[in-house]
Amino acid sequence: MPERLVVVGGDAAGMSAASQARRRRKPDELEIIVLERGNYVSYSACGEPYYVSGDVEDFEDLKVRTPEQFWKVSIDARLHHEATGIDTDKGKVTFRSPAGEETIGYDHLLYATGSESLRPPIEGVGLEGVYELRTLDDAKTLRTVATGGARKAVVVGGGYIGLEVAEAFHTLGLETTIVTMMPTVLERTFDPDMGARVGDRLREMGIELITEHKVECLEGRHGKVVGAGCFDQSIQADIVVLALGSRPATRLAADAGIPLGASGGVTVDDHQRTPIDRVWSAGDCADALHRISGLPINVHLGTVANKAGRVAGINLGGGDATFPGILGTAITKVHDFEIARTGLTEFEAESAGFEYVAAEVGSSTAAHYWPGSSPMRVKMVAERGTTKLLGAQIIGGPGAGKRIDTVASALWSGMTASDLAMVDLAYSPPFSGVWDPVNIAARKVAAAATAVSG
Amino acid sequence: MPERLVVVGGDAAGMSAASQARRRRKPDELEIIVLERGNYVSYSACGEPYYVSGDVEDFEDLKVRTPEQFWKVSIDARLHHEATGIDTDKGKVTFRSPAGEETIGYDHLLYATGSESLRPPIEGVGLEGVYELRTLDDAKTLRTVATGGARKAVVVGGGYIGLEVAEAFHTLGLETTIVTMMPTVLERTFDPDMGARVGDRLREMGIELITEHKVECLEGRHGKVVGAGCFDQSIQADIVVLALGSRPATRLAADAGIPLGASGGVTVDDHQRTPIDRVWSAGDCADALHRISGLPINVHLGTVANKAGRVAGINLGGGDATFPGILGTAITKVHDFEIARTGLTEFEAESAGFEYVAAEVGSSTAAHYWPGSSPMRVKMVAERGTTKLLGAQIIGGPGAGKRIDTVASALWSGMTASDLAMVDLAYSPPFSGVWDPVNIAARKVAAAATAVSG
Repeated sequence: MPERLVVVGGDAAGMSAASQARRRRKPDELEIIVLERGNYVSYSACGEPYYVSGDVEDFEDLKVRTPEQFWKVSIDARLHHEATGIDTDKGKVTFRSPAGEETIGYDHLLYATGSESLRPPIEGVGLEGVYELRTLDDAKTLRTVATGGARKAVVVGGGYIGLEVAEAFHTLGLETTIVTMMPTVLERTFDPDMGARVGDRLREMGIELITEHKVECLEGRHGKVVGAGCFDQSIQADIVVLALGSRPATRLAADAGIPLGASGGVTVDDHQRTPIDRVWSAGDCADALHRISGLPINVHLGTVANKAGRVAGINLGGGDATFPGILGTAITKVHDFEIARTGLTEFEAESAGFEYVAAEVGSSTAAHYWPGSSPMRVKMVAERGTTKLLGAQIIGGPGAGKRIDTVASALWSGMTASDLAMVDLAYSPPFSGVWDPVNIAARKVAAAATAVSG
Repeated sequence: MPERLVVVGGDAAGMSAASQARRRRKPDELEIIVLERGNYVSYSACGEPYYVSGDVEDFEDLKVRTPEQFWKVSIDARLHHEATGIDTDKGKVTFRSPAGEETIGYDHLLYATGSESLRPPIEGVGLEGVYELRTLDDAKTLRTVATGGARKAVVVGGGYIGLEVAEAFHTLGLETTIVTMMPTVLERTFDPDMGARVGDRLREMGIELITEHKVECLEGRHGKVVGAGCFDQSIQADIVVLALGSRPATRLAADAGIPLGASGGVTVDDHQRTPIDRVWSAGDCADALHRISGLPINVHLGTVANKAGRVAGINLGGGDATFPGILGTAITKVHDFEIARTGLTEFEAESAGFEYVAAEVGSSTAAHYWPGSSPMRVKMVAERGTTKLLGAQIIGGPGAGKRIDTVASALWSGMTASDLAMVDLAYSPPFSGVWDPVNIAARKVAAAATAVSG
């Protein structure tokens, strides 16, 4: 009799784990069942805004793998199967499917339910024309509506998804407004000064941005949304997208007594094991160790889900892999304006108890005289005294964003800003000044970190 | 009486040093005289091919700083002043200028003469239409000739400059041929397999490439070049550019008894001091420590010259800076095809005595379904057993090249490929797959490095 691995949730983390486990243990050693409540397994959530915009034309491109592809390697991937209960004492999972409710046993359980949208109590969310962008089906709907005669779109929320959806609508020619209750966009992941610069850029592009404005209700007429906010505050809209962030989908875990950490995700060790015997977790629903703060953190990023899923899968397959932690590196763009971050912001450095300094450098993506050169800005945070790098934020034109990886690589090994200032980075006029902006920002923050304060 | 610093050579290293020294020591403490034999100080040699091509329209853009700018901060930058002798015992430099020959004393000497073109004995190099691309004046001449009715260009040599000049001619619509005696292009800095791929790409673009062909003579008619090679081997040409590489300009140093290292450059310590009292050196003419091989190496790169010059200048100004060494990171492009490298190639790893493995990954610059995605290839070299990173080479479409910095940053801190495989790099479909090609290549080379050899 083979052992049985049940994976709850069939997206990035779950399917990476299933694939890795299968590569190491054949079907006669390990049966793998994946319970996915939705219509797809293993899809590119990050690609969805680009399907809405039409940049990605083929819906099929967003499906990384189909159930059939998993079946071929004897991974029993089941759509429309929603886990409804876990009994960790008896090693059983109960799920609901089109065929009814059923309970099966497991030898190993991987909890990979991902995250779910935050839905604050806003009046009128049930109106026609109010959406979110989460599943592939949401993407399909938004594409249809946005290209079907809609003229005015309101995006509530200024995080990554909010910006990306706004970009998509703007690309399609809709009058687009982002509304956020915060003073700037990207308020959770960037410092306010950098967020404000992104906000300025959005406005220059013609995307309206309303800050410090809480949308408490949506206005409807004949059941259809016509405005965000109500009464005299209303902003006209044919489409409203709620992009208010997400939280780890941990209800099922909590009900089963699987411990959650302070940051809200399922507690895991560096092998992706929860404290409960035979129960593992990975992806948006689980915590991950932040390498710089040294604290567990819950982030919802495809990169982390894939890596953590891979580690879980290797271990479930009998290997020995360690998850090395994360930096919270992320990148997005609005048209040709790139936005990236890694490590800790000033706020996060403060929260983690660091004595820190920050410095910013305005520079260009290429030699200043190169015709394709555009402005870019690097902000760097470092520990006072030691100059140990803590984090960076980069915004700017084409070629700016992926420079964040240079900093990520430096952060990974605990490099100081003084060191990064002299790292031998690549130069040629179409690509950089002779001192890359990353070198310059590092030099500047190192100087600030070692300056004797008056 | 102030001390006197004499800088021999007024380009990147010399002027960086002069500027840094001046920032730390005022004119009443330190007099700074720069002897530059050419027509310019502090110019962008790396920008020259892009002036030839017309990408950079304004010749003035290639001048980083003018003598006048240096004079303003009391740096006595003198053009057309060629040092002709150094007496390190007496602390004197002799130079020739339009005013005649003169000898002055120094308290500190910075030897920053840069590099000079290799000019193998080729018959006919004196013909009209035969050029090299070294100085700003060369760039001006090439631009004039290439836009003045020339139709066929031959570039002899397949290094960075050879490729960049060929690109410029090709941009201008000339029939362009690169001739190299080596089996591929970039033979000194890339492994042959990667060089061959670059060669294939050049040919696809319509740049002809003739390999393993030694140009021993240039054919002329009425004093003007008409072909490269002679007799039956001749390739028609209105313009021939010799781009056969460069060597450190060390004659003056050698004559003065300033020691040279095995790699040909002036020997310096980590403060840019030569073994001779009060004599310093930096830039193309000096050696630099390669951080991976641990050996001194002589490279001709603007990045290294600027960094080493800065270090020399800080120390000459009374500060204490250490040059941390180099990786030989470099980048170039041919049209939209990017080419970059860092650390050691297979050949260099072998020469440095490493037991190494290499692995290559074909991937894409963005998510495979992103409309602007293009192919890219990452080759990585790592130490067998430990998986310690030794080097990388990257080629591909827009966005590929600067990823080399991610590897440079990792190499800098001695990271293993196993570690780099899991570094938290930035992902979003317009920028990368969910596993960046750098992660994937690192994973592959780590697997190769730890595989039990049969």
